[in-house]
Amino acid sequence: MSDRRFAAALIAAACAASPAVADEGMWTFDNFPSAAVAKEHGVDIGPAWLERVRLSVVRLAGCTASFVSDRGLMLTNHHCIEGCLAQHSTREKSLIESGVFAKSRDEEFRCATQIADVLVELEDITPAVAIATRELDDRQAKERRRQTLTTLEQRCEDTSKTSPNTLKCESVTLYGGGQYWLYKYRRYTDVRLVFTPEGGIAAFGGDPDNFQYPRWGLDMALLRAYSDGKPVDTPNHFAIDFDGPKAGELVFVAGHPGSTDRQLTVAQLQTMRDGVLPPALLRTSELRGRYSQFAKTSPEAERIVRDPLNGLENSLKVQRKLLDALLDDRQMQRKRDEEQRLREFVATHRGQLPANDDPWARIETAQDAQAAILLPYGYLEDAAGFNSRLFRYARLLIRAAAERPKSNTDRLREYTDASLPRIEQQLGAQVPIYPELERLTLSYSLERMREWLGPDHPVVRRLLSTESPDSLAAALVDGSKLADPAVRMALWNGGQAAVEASQDPMIALARDIDAEARALRSRQESEVDAVNEVGGEAIAKVRFAALGTTAYPDATFTLRLNYGTVQGWSENGTAIEPFTRLSRLFERATGQAPFAVPDTWQRARATLDLDTPFNLSTNSDIVGGNSGSPLINAAGKIVGLIFDGNIHSISGAYWFDAEKNRAVAVDTTIIREALTKVYHAQALLDEIGITY
Amino acid sequence: MSDRRFAAALIAAACAASPAVADEGMWTFDNFPSAAVAKEHGVDIGPAWLERVRLSVVRLAGCTASFVSDRGLMLTNHHCIEGCLAQHSTREKSLIESGVFAKSRDEEFRCATQIADVLVELEDITPAVAIATRELDDRQAKERRRQTLTTLEQRCEDTSKTSPNTLKCESVTLYGGGQYWLYKYRRYTDVRLVFTPEGGIAAFGGDPDNFQYPRWGLDMALLRAYSDGKPVDTPNHFAIDFDGPKAGELVFVAGHPGSTDRQLTVAQLQTMRDGVLPPALLRTSELRGRYSQFAKTSPEAERIVRDPLNGLENSLKVQRKLLDALLDDRQMQRKRDEEQRLREFVATHRGQLPANDDPWARIETAQDAQAAILLPYGYLEDAAGFNSRLFRYARLLIRAAAERPKSNTDRLREYTDASLPRIEQQLGAQVPIYPELERLTLSYSLERMREWLGPDHPVVRRLLSTESPDSLAAALVDGSKLADPAVRMALWNGGQAAVEASQDPMIALARDIDAEARALRSRQESEVDAVNEVGGEAIAKVRFAALGTTAYPDATFTLRLNYGTVQGWSENGTAIEPFTRLSRLFERATGQAPFAVPDTWQRARATLDLDTPFNLSTNSDIVGGNSGSPLINAAGKIVGLIFDGNIHSISGAYWFDAEKNRAVAVDTTIIREALTKVYHAQALLDEIGITY
Repeated sequence: MSDRRFAAALIAAACAASPAVADEGMWTFDNFPSAAVAKEHGVDIGPAWLERVRLSVVRLAGCTASFVSDRGLMLTNHHCIEGCLAQHSTREKSLIESGVFAKSRDEEFRCATQIADVLVELEDITPAVAIATRELDDRQAKERRRQTLTTLEQRCEDTSKTSPNTLKCESVTLYGGGQYWLYKYRRYTDVRLVFTPEGGIAAFGGDPDNFQYPRWGLDMALLRAYSDGKPVDTPNHFAIDFDGPKAGELVFVAGHPGSTDRQLTVAQLQTMRDGVLPPALLRTSELRGRYSQFAKTSPEAERIVRDPLNGLENSLKVQRKLLDALLDDRQMQRKRDEEQRLREFVATHRGQLPANDDPWARIETAQDAQAAILLPYGYLEDAAGFNSRLFRYARLLIRAAAERPKSNTDRLREYTDASLPRIEQQLGAQVPIYPELERLTLSYSLERMREWLGPDHPVVRRLLSTESPDSLAAALVDGSKLADPAVRMALWNGGQAAVEASQDPMIALARDIDAEARALRSRQESEVDAVNEVGGEAIAKVRFAALGTTAYPDATFTLRLNYGTVQGWSENGTAIEPFTRLSRLFERATGQAPFAVPDTWQRARATLDLDTPFNLSTNSDIVGGNSGSPLINAAGKIVGLIFDGNIHSISGAYWFDAEKNRAVAVDTTIIREALTKVYHAQALLDEIGITY
Repeated sequence: MSDRRFAAALIAAACAASPAVADEGMWTFDNFPSAAVAKEHGVDIGPAWLERVRLSVVRLAGCTASFVSDRGLMLTNHHCIEGCLAQHSTREKSLIESGVFAKSRDEEFRCATQIADVLVELEDITPAVAIATRELDDRQAKERRRQTLTTLEQRCEDTSKTSPNTLKCESVTLYGGGQYWLYKYRRYTDVRLVFTPEGGIAAFGGDPDNFQYPRWGLDMALLRAYSDGKPVDTPNHFAIDFDGPKAGELVFVAGHPGSTDRQLTVAQLQTMRDGVLPPALLRTSELRGRYSQFAKTSPEAERIVRDPLNGLENSLKVQRKLLDALLDDRQMQRKRDEEQRLREFVATHRGQLPANDDPWARIETAQDAQAAILLPYGYLEDAAGFNSRLFRYARLLIRAAAERPKSNTDRLREYTDASLPRIEQQLGAQVPIYPELERLTLSYSLERMREWLGPDHPVVRRLLSTESPDSLAAALVDGSKLADPAVRMALWNGGQAAVEASQDPMIALARDIDAEARALRSRQESEVDAVNEVGGEAIAKVRFAALGTTAYPDATFTLRLNYGTVQGWSENGTAIEPFTRLSRLFERATGQAPFAVPDTWQRARATLDLDTPFNLSTNSDIVGGNSGSPLINAAGKIVGLIFDGNIHSISGAYWFDAEKNRAVAVDTTIIREALTKVYHAQALLDEIGITY
């Protein structure tokens, strides 16, 4: 087979990251395929357009937002700020249910742990990393790379401190190690809540409708970034086109897709399918049952469990569909075929890999090591056996105390200088801890740890030889003082000495298991992660050689841009239309949660245009983390607000199903209808430029 | 490839039901491989031995037992009669916890829904079925076969009524339709409880230890069969050898393995792996969480949920390991290879199948039909959406009322005349119904039905358009009177008219969904079951042609016998010894459930021989339903009591893993030690012939 034919076959092999089924792709801003867009859609996307969009998009904790006024106003999803709403709710009033409407700046309240990052600069550091890791073996290379990235991040932040705008610098690994970048963010740590509608309309349909379509969700929220107690100036922001998009219209999504696994080898996918997802699904399902039953014990219990339950049900649906995707033997065979073709490419192109190096085989071998420690690693180091906020504080405190005295490059990755301010923010934040919920999650996770590691595992025996999971959890939660930010900050500031002297039972637990947990981490990193990474880099090199940057890298919770069109799809032969209308919301309402339409809407019903488009679907290639992303038209205006994908979008973790994978957005038309006729949000309307 | 070589290859292909890796096999009593036993072990197993064993073994509801005295005394497992213990427990006293010890006949109390069947005769009816179904198409053949089996069963029972001993006659399908038999049982419906030890020792280690080994469980119970208010005479019964077996000793297990799927095609296994097990696991896990959390609300809640929770956790472990088994791509490939070889056998042996008939392809096609109705069938017809004892009564009542007026052969299989006495027994039995538990399970299952069928499914919409799952469940459970046996019997006796006139909300619900449920049942039977059955029969014929009865049929909850030896296995290179000893029980005790040793044992500790063998493992090929089976030595004496398998035994549903699949039994030595020194059970000891 000639090289050219070979490359064509490789591309035809439905290689997930191969040059793009039209509209597939989470492109980095430095490598957006403007030529393809021009060719396919006759639209020019130039550097100025790209830069303006990049500077108007915001990264939140786990979500995306975008500036929509020059005074720091940000548009995102209601579900992205549920945690903040829960923290400000009381026994008497649930803000998730009631919504929030700050009539003036004074009423805008702070989300204690929220941050907002704007990507202001990108720097390619691939050459620096290549030089630093030259001629090292896998384990050494991994270690040196970690040190190099930490050093470059630190240098970047230190340098920026001398300028007016200090920056947050984060290294980013793309193409499975084919490229390394430094992404530089302006960070806002004072983020306040301005407006959300009621949960009943934001999440109409609740968990039953989550990942479903057609849909009627006004999943929106408005936040504002503050600095020094004042709204920040945001000259870069989006205008909103309140007439929404048309069917078939070209649209762009700019946002922060969290993670995809489109470059994993078949062996790695099998580990996910056989070893990771099934136990995770069982854990999630059981915890859902415990939460649901706990919620029935009192209205207060119902309130405090709602936010974690929502998150859990979302994960459950995702995990389920990921497993379904991996159980598709035909897709797995396509992956296998693709690997085979890449191996053949290596065989026919000398010099792509060192002689006798087979990275696929190395990665496959590492899966055995992975299987051997998957459970103890998950329960002890990943702390699935200690599901408790108080435990997470304890772990943070004892690890930080141990790591901070080390030189920056010798620390565990998550305790480098660059990470410490965020840890300090979390430790100092006043967020409610519910002892009943803590006891529930901790007792449950101890019980599952005993089941999966077995009653004779040393840690299990040490912890549960005279205590039951219930009694131990109660003793730990009731005895710990870590719910108090002052106690946490004292331990943080007191460092190693304070942590060692602490009698807090949760600190004692974290100390007690730390040696075992660290040993597992070390095995995981050297026996599995290092092999996967180096093997992945080698495969990425081969892939580059075959495909170049006509491919796009896996999602890494960094800024990406994709293009697509407004369109529905066909489900078992039935056409699913891309737009839903307001009228059907009222027809579908049952009066019972999660299908109850809030009173404000019932009262305004007669004044509303029932033909208003509500939600819409597009073939945008998105994934979790894109929630809150602006849907942008060719003119660079917002025409929608991404808040979900359809059920087929979940397989997007492993491949893009062009036929069925659809993103789901709130139409800007319904946003205007709601703000004008339901919420009468005068000041907001002025600020975002709605005339009415 | 010559025919002989072909057959050898087929056998070597690890065909699950192929002639026997030594010790594999759940043999029917008419086809026990005595010659193989003689050759391998030098022991003669003759017809007299087989008949005496057959007549001494008893089938319980879902379990096995064996007669151990001439006065109807039966030995089985504690976990087999937990339901009965729960029914007789009170708020003040849990019999599962305390155990039961009837000091005299008067104190022996009845297990309301328990039955005991002894297989007294077997009749091969394959020819009669073949004649009846000659020249019919799949669907007609299935219908005619059903009618024929019902007729033969009925005729058998009618005939027996003229003799002193009326019989229960059940047709049995073996070899996936390769053989049909009539199994004739003597049935005892008055079964009383004589003795069980405390739950703490019967199920020492609880769910954490379930399916694990080494093990320390005295999972035993003694029942007694009564007739006309008097213990029945049982001249056929086992003697017990209280010295237990030796390592390596030849042992037999006679019992009623419930079901295995060793003849399924790859397509059917994939349906299990992809469509059946994952959703079942999620449902079970979530319900486990709800039960566990409910148990924490009060000691009473803990008591009433314990028995269902135990059952659920057992199912969960089984489902988990079944999924693990099917995720083993290498075993699946072996199944695929075996199919390929059978297809080649067909290709080289004309006349095995009609020209152009490919039963594997037909079954594969039926899987698409299966996938399309799996969820609605499960929720509506299998009633996974209506998890409630009251609903099950309602379903029984409305279906029985509709079916009974039909001629016996036209009814749904489970409502034939032969089944009616058992239904009547269940409806009339006074068993406690716990409204809180009913509300929990019903609300939960309605919620999951809404999730999986979707809020827009007609049934979901009809039931939940103005009610939440909680409010609907409460209305149904609180409004229904079906917890009262008198109400149920009135509806049963009143027939169609009474059921139609009933205002009971649970009856109304069962009526409301019945048309949809029956429609799904009909589709399932015609589009899936009929194809699977007829295809399975064709494959069974091919298999017969290749292998004859050197193979054994899948388990069908009918009497089987297997042989093996007492042996451990190797786990990750570590040898697991076949025997455990009493001393380690005390070392392993933590004082906390489920690792607390009861007081009776602590008090007797000084008098006990701590070297006594406790549990043992054998390579017997067993499966659920074998619980309570006697472990028999060559002399025909009981040397152990089967109560579990190790974790690898669960894959036995699909294939026998000769290296690791082990059965777990109680050693008779510890039974003697317990009855003499812990429980001082004088009368029992006399009855079962222990001298001390």
